[in-house]
Amino acid sequence: MITLLVVGTVAYDTIETPFGKVEKVLGGSALHFTNAASFFTDVGIVATVGKDFELSDIDFLKERNVDLSGIAIGEGKTFSWSGKYGYDLNQAITIKTELNVIEQFAPQIPESFRDASFVFLANIDPRLQIEAINQVNAPQLIVLDTMNFWIEHKYDTLMEAIEKIHMLIINEAELREISKEHNLVKGARKIMAYGPSWIIAKRGEYGVFMMSENEVFLAPAFPLEDVFDPTGAGDTFAGGFMGYLANIGEVSSETIKQAAVMGSVMASFNVEDFSINRLKKLKYEEIRERYTAFKRCCEFRDIEFR
Amino acid sequence: MITLLVVGTVAYDTIETPFGKVEKVLGGSALHFTNAASFFTDVGIVATVGKDFELSDIDFLKERNVDLSGIAIGEGKTFSWSGKYGYDLNQAITIKTELNVIEQFAPQIPESFRDASFVFLANIDPRLQIEAINQVNAPQLIVLDTMNFWIEHKYDTLMEAIEKIHMLIINEAELREISKEHNLVKGARKIMAYGPSWIIAKRGEYGVFMMSENEVFLAPAFPLEDVFDPTGAGDTFAGGFMGYLANIGEVSSETIKQAAVMGSVMASFNVEDFSINRLKKLKYEEIRERYTAFKRCCEFRDIEFR
Repeated sequence: MITLLVVGTVAYDTIETPFGKVEKVLGGSALHFTNAASFFTDVGIVATVGKDFELSDIDFLKERNVDLSGIAIGEGKTFSWSGKYGYDLNQAITIKTELNVIEQFAPQIPESFRDASFVFLANIDPRLQIEAINQVNAPQLIVLDTMNFWIEHKYDTLMEAIEKIHMLIINEAELREISKEHNLVKGARKIMAYGPSWIIAKRGEYGVFMMSENEVFLAPAFPLEDVFDPTGAGDTFAGGFMGYLANIGEVSSETIKQAAVMGSVMASFNVEDFSINRLKKLKYEEIRERYTAFKRCCEFRDIEFR
Repeated sequence: MITLLVVGTVAYDTIETPFGKVEKVLGGSALHFTNAASFFTDVGIVATVGKDFELSDIDFLKERNVDLSGIAIGEGKTFSWSGKYGYDLNQAITIKTELNVIEQFAPQIPESFRDASFVFLANIDPRLQIEAINQVNAPQLIVLDTMNFWIEHKYDTLMEAIEKIHMLIINEAELREISKEHNLVKGARKIMAYGPSWIIAKRGEYGVFMMSENEVFLAPAFPLEDVFDPTGAGDTFAGGFMGYLANIGEVSSETIKQAAVMGSVMASFNVEDFSINRLKKLKYEEIRERYTAFKRCCEFRDIEFR
């Protein structure tokens, strides 16, 4: 039995930023997500890697109650992504994507994962996201992420997946692309009509926009002086967000706002180093300190009107 | 005697957005600023208009304790700006700027304005901003705005002006351009070394970034479903910000944060209609309501750590 299930990718990344370059480092949506979520709850990860993957590199996650038994070893090499960033770290330029084992990926949710109360479907083919949904037993919260490629090439399948979920976590530009609305409030409302009760739009250094039927919530991104590598920040946000919610076990307007703040706190660590390095060595005490600093950046004394 | 002095432009604007077009409507930095600030304090405005300007159009400001005696009537026509916006309302495209009377503008601060405790130098030639500073008697807070044109063409004069002020309110892109730093924290720190104790970067729909020696504060922009015309939003922000501060009369970390929220609240009204129309008919009660809604969008319950 696990509390939080993630279905996504484990990858080898090659990344270049104005601050350095690393080759064949650990990456992938499911790995960044799990690295963050495992600070708060027990996580089961479903992904596939190639025969070249060094499983011992992610052994440290077991100490954080992560169940790695859902990682299948496929024929061929591990999925790999190569990209670079300029000084405007908001925009990644993809140099090469090698799907490798991902091409035959069909998520097999282990029996012991199927009763997870919280499910995160990281960015993969929406057809596979639907297959994963069909294998789980009525979770309390299903959250889905996607990307421009699926919006442009598998729109109908994606919308079919979106009908089956409770919450969508995507980038601001993806919200605009899916909804064909420039205004986020209008766009989110349009997507909610398909089923989801919550839409979260990630806005990079500007934080997150969150909307439900009754309210909008805006959380800033923690202002950092040194942003090193933004790769995985979105999945780290989702991991902190869902890990926190799964730990609390209650999904309400109040807990979702707190979770968005926790997601932002975790994402602020991720960008401080390449790959999963910063969160690998992160101490729980540092999360508490960063949260206190985060709060100081957005709290203000109530205004008294005459 | 007035509390808040603004030196800037009063203009005729021609504006086109995806939602409509208006010709020769009231605009200009000092007018948008005053329209907002006058809800909170008495304002003295120093600007120049042409013989074609209909002074009776701004008579309504007198009822809000605005002193219009600093508006000089110069030879020639009123300064006019013509611009348009696409669906991404963050970026204005200037079609035509006719300086007209502005070309001979030399701010003459009336005797009765010189003891103002709060001074806002809206975006004009930095040489004129310095001339204005030289005419006032030790105000509590001098705030300056500028634009890319002066950064690119009068950098040294601009930096000389910045040495004489307490706070800079500019756009995010301008902060990057002045400081030659992409990172806002680093950039703000660099500019503060010239003298200002506070730097505010306006980020359009993403709100504002504010930094002092000891802290960073981030306020969101109020999430609107219908943004009609963003012209003057920045000056309206500054007007709400400084009007609120001048009313309180105290400049501290806490009041500056509250003022930034009030500036954002006022800016959210400005974009709901063309020109100064929305704030012209705005009721004080609406400000209170919008503030309550604003707070709901960014407040979250404190997280309790184990």
